[in-house]
Parts: sequence; C-alpha cells; structure tokens
Amino acid sequence: MKETMHSPQELYKLFEEYRTKHSFSFSPNELYEPIRYILDLGGKRMRPLLTLMGCDLFKGKIEDALPVAYAVELFHNFTLVHDDIMDNAHLRRNHPTVHEEFGTARAILSGDVMMIYVYEFLNHLETKKFRKAIDLFNTTAIRVCEGQQYDLNFQPAKEVSVKDYLMMIEFKTAVLLACSLKLGAIVADADETNGNDLFEFGKNMGICFQLLDDMLDAFGEESKVGKKIGGDIAQNKKTYLSIKALELAKSDEKEKLIYYFSNNVPVDEKVKHVLEIYHKLGMEKCARAEAEKFHHAAFDSLDNVKVDEERKKVLKEFAASLLKRQS
Amino acid sequence: MKETMHSPQELYKLFEEYRTKHSFSFSPNELYEPIRYILDLGGKRMRPLLTLMGCDLFKGKIEDALPVAYAVELFHNFTLVHDDIMDNAHLRRNHPTVHEEFGTARAILSGDVMMIYVYEFLNHLETKKFRKAIDLFNTTAIRVCEGQQYDLNFQPAKEVSVKDYLMMIEFKTAVLLACSLKLGAIVADADETNGNDLFEFGKNMGICFQLLDDMLDAFGEESKVGKKIGGDIAQNKKTYLSIKALELAKSDEKEKLIYYFSNNVPVDEKVKHVLEIYHKLGMEKCARAEAEKFHHAAFDSLDNVKVDEERKKVLKEFAASLLKRQS
Repeated sequence: MKETMHSPQELYKLFEEYRTKHSFSFSPNELYEPIRYILDLGGKRMRPLLTLMGCDLFKGKIEDALPVAYAVELFHNFTLVHDDIMDNAHLRRNHPTVHEEFGTARAILSGDVMMIYVYEFLNHLETKKFRKAIDLFNTTAIRVCEGQQYDLNFQPAKEVSVKDYLMMIEFKTAVLLACSLKLGAIVADADETNGNDLFEFGKNMGICFQLLDDMLDAFGEESKVGKKIGGDIAQNKKTYLSIKALELAKSDEKEKLIYYFSNNVPVDEKVKHVLEIYHKLGMEKCARAEAEKFHHAAFDSLDNVKVDEERKKVLKEFAASLLKRQS
Repeated sequence: MKETMHSPQELYKLFEEYRTKHSFSFSPNELYEPIRYILDLGGKRMRPLLTLMGCDLFKGKIEDALPVAYAVELFHNFTLVHDDIMDNAHLRRNHPTVHEEFGTARAILSGDVMMIYVYEFLNHLETKKFRKAIDLFNTTAIRVCEGQQYDLNFQPAKEVSVKDYLMMIEFKTAVLLACSLKLGAIVADADETNGNDLFEFGKNMGICFQLLDDMLDAFGEESKVGKKIGGDIAQNKKTYLSIKALELAKSDEKEKLIYYFSNNVPVDEKVKHVLEIYHKLGMEKCARAEAEKFHHAAFDSLDNVKVDEERKKVLKEFAASLLKRQS
C-alpha cells in the first residue's frame, strides 16, 4: 500500500484505460453498440472518480477499485439511457440520445444488459467486500429508481414542497455519488463509520451539486453553461427555483408564476418573465444559501472521517471544483 | 433435512405464500403498482417451481430456496414487462400489458427496479452460495438479453437458419429454466457436476418446450390453447415452423411461403394458406421429431444426475406434464 496519493487526472487516466480494455465488443452487435456509444460520449466520470478517490483516501489498491468504478459508471449510464426514453429527450451531451440513434427497443435492452454487467463488475471483488458492496449498491440503486419516479410524479403536479423536492434529488442524484465514494472505502477495507461519514459527505455534496445545476439553468452564463439559459423554465420543470419561488411569492407574483408555468406562453416570453420574478424574489441568493447549507454539511461529514487531513486534500479540491461549477 | 419430497402443488403453495409476504407495498406507489400488477397476473410459476424442485431433489431446505425462487420469477416478469414494450404487445395473460395499463415510462422504470430486487432476493443466500448463484445468474441474464436481441434481429430478416433459431430460443428461453433448476441445486449445496447435469436437463427441456409452443400456434386446438390459431403466422413471426418450412419447401411452395410472409395478404387467407403448406410439408411431424430430440437429451442429462431415482420422479412428472402441454 503506497502512501502517495493519486491526482484526479491520474485516476481519470487509469479509469479510461480500464474502460478501454472492457469495451463490450461482444455479439450481437445490435445489443452492445449502444453501450459503447453512450460510454464513448464521455462526461466528467464523476462517479467512478469518486470511487477511486474513496479508495485512495484509505490507501486501498486502485486496481481493485477499477472494476467497481466501472460498475458505478455503467449504472449511471444505464439510468441516462432509460431516463432519456422516459423524458423523451433528444440530445445527450450534444449527441442524439441512445433511443434516437438506435431506436427504443435497443435502448431499453442495452440498458437492461448494462445493469446486469454492473453486477458482473462488482463481482470482481473478494467475497467479504462483494457482499458489503452489493448491500450498499442495491439499496442505492432502488433509491435512484424511486427518485426518478418521484421526478416523473412531480412534473404534472401543481405544487411540490421544497422538502419533497430535496428528497427527490437526494434519491435520484445524491445517493449514487455517496454510494460511489463509500464503495471506494469498502474496496480499501475502511471501517464502517468512516465509510458512512464519507457517504454523508457525498450525499450532501450531491444535493448541493444538483441545487447548483438548477441555478445554472437560470443564472448561468450561456457561453459557459453550453446551452440556452432557461431550459428548465421553458419545459415547466420542477426545480428548487420554481418550487421555492412559488412558496415565497406574494399573491400577484404567485398568480403570474402559475400562469407562466401552466400556460402555453411563447417560450422566450415565459423565460423572460419568470426570470424577472426570480430576480425580484432574490432567488439566486436564496438558492445559494440553501446550496451552502449542504456544502457545509458535506465538509462537516468529511471532517469526521478519521484519516490524515493531508489525504483529504485531493477529495476536497475535487469537490470544491465541482461546486464552483459553471457548466 | 427431511427425506420426503414436496409435490409441485405444495411447492406452488409455499411459493405463493412467500410472494404474498413480499408484495412490494412500497412508496412511491406509481413505481411499485406495476410490479404487483404483473406478478398478480399469475402464470404457471414454472421457473420458481423449478428452483424449489431443484433444491428438493438434493434434500435442500425449501425455506432457503424461496427467496431465490422469487428472484427468478421477478427476473422473468421483468423480461416480460420490457419485452412487451419492445414487441408493442397489447395483451399479456388476457390483460393489458404493463405499458398499456401504466404507460411506457412506468413500465420501463418498474422493470428496472424489479431487476435490482432480483439481486436483493438472491442476497438472502449465505455467502458461498450467494457467490455461486450470482455467477450463474449473471451469465444467464446476459444470455437472455442477447437472446431477445437475436429475436428482434430475426423478425425483419429474410432468412434465418434453424441453427441460429435454436440458439436464439436457447438464449431467450431455455437457459433461464436451466438456471432456475441449478440455482435450486446450489441452495441445496449439490456438487457442481450434479448441478451442471440438472442445468443441461433444464436447457434441453426449455428448447423442447419452446418448440412445442411454436407447434401449438399452428397445430393446437383453439379451445385448449386459449388463443386464435396462427397468431405467429399472422405476425410473420420467425418460428421453428416458418424457418424449417422455408428450408424444406420446393421452389413453388417456397415462393408461396415467401409471398405470404412478406406481403400484406389478409390475415385469414395468409394463415389458411401457410397452414396448408405446413401440412403438405409434414411440418407437425418434423417439428415433433426435433422437439423429441431435445426431450431425449433432457432426460439423458437427468439420468446422469447422481441422486436416488425415486427423488427424480416429481421432476420427471412435472417435465412430462409441461411437455404434454396443450396450452
């Protein structure tokens, strides 16, 4: 076990090498081509990096964590493929979504088989760790599906509480980040308390991350975000902003928000007016304050992890860079 | 470990009791309702019964096999839900399919979460058996997805060989029956060779079972089968009959078959003419001979299983009853 730690760049490189070696060149091609396609679209590889960092934090062997990191990346991509069908999305990372490119049947089926391969890659672990990993992963994966269902439920709902919205993003997004980190801790044989503190760190960071995502859509810079501002508003999407704004608005503003969110107002007009109301209500400040609560909770949890402070630096910097996101 | 064996009826009852106790009454209801719906549609529970019988054969504890039996039933139902979307099917066991009843998004998502619960129920096993079960189940589940993809590939294909068709039904249908049995053997801690022989028995029986299914569609009695004869022909489905008939037919009959299978001939006329050609070519006899080859192979494999002949009786009778199927 070596004492020096890996940089995120080194871990990224190791992960991509592993991924290239396990690239699903199997038959029938019709089943495996969509898997290669979605994985090759790239992305930040945030979840597998978290697994590798979680392992590195406790001086675990990175080689042992690679299949587990791949498993979480496969699971994440499986959810993207199936969610894009459910959401009728056309683009993913500026490319056609899998069902647009290959048809819905192949998108469903290749997603299904990815899910099985998640367990195949977890299956690389030695038995004691495997068992712990499966317990954690199953619980998490079930939460993720429940979160997606809550998200689907919320879309046509008139009113959603902030509490329910936060639960939804915890389930749909945050627990997988938390799980990715804790799986790394399991690979490194960290004790349960440390693993749980790391989980809490990841969960709170994940909620914070999603809140910032909501904010970027309304207050980001188009050139940096890389997509049109106000996309969530245009789609009447429930976000922290739309929900909290409805809660804060006085009667006339509230009526206006309800009007814009429930009627087929031309998109440009809708976005313009809703953003005006968001500004008037001080939504940017309000959402940032909420995000910071989770940010603090995250770093408090990380403080509880019993490991040399020096070793936490990489993870802290990585988290800070994610939380400073402008895209 | 008791020496007396359970009848299929007793095992069925035990399974249904277990299932009722684990009936997915979770939140959000939108996610779990489709699971209860598909499971409550019934069916023969062939796969879980095979798991329980496989366990009973080697004097294993039925209680230990129940969660595993439930896992295979969940997996089977997950494939039904997703396959029905891919095949655009409207009816399943005389009821609306899950996506017809609850919409495609909920059908995809509840299928996904069922898949995760498969592993949750396998997770009831003690560690050594769990590991073996996961190895077998993953390999099988991957095969099942590949089989479904081959089936999708074959539908628009002009010609499919009998060899490829038999591989497809082995993957799509037979290996899961084989796996169900062998999982029972694993629960009972049977030795590997016995488990493999039982697997071969199940696999060959599964292929035989599917060939008989193909035959029922053309040569069954409508009142017994419970659906209109010639459904596969009406849908231009690749079956053993359509593939083998094309192989056996002389030029004029072959042309006719190609004409009927590729053109929008009125359904009644199409079914009538194709059945005429099947009769002329002696397809019933031919398909039965093929089915019997697998039937014999199945029982040869069962002969190899080293366990009191007396204990094999239940399984033999169950298999014989399946293979005498008229519905």
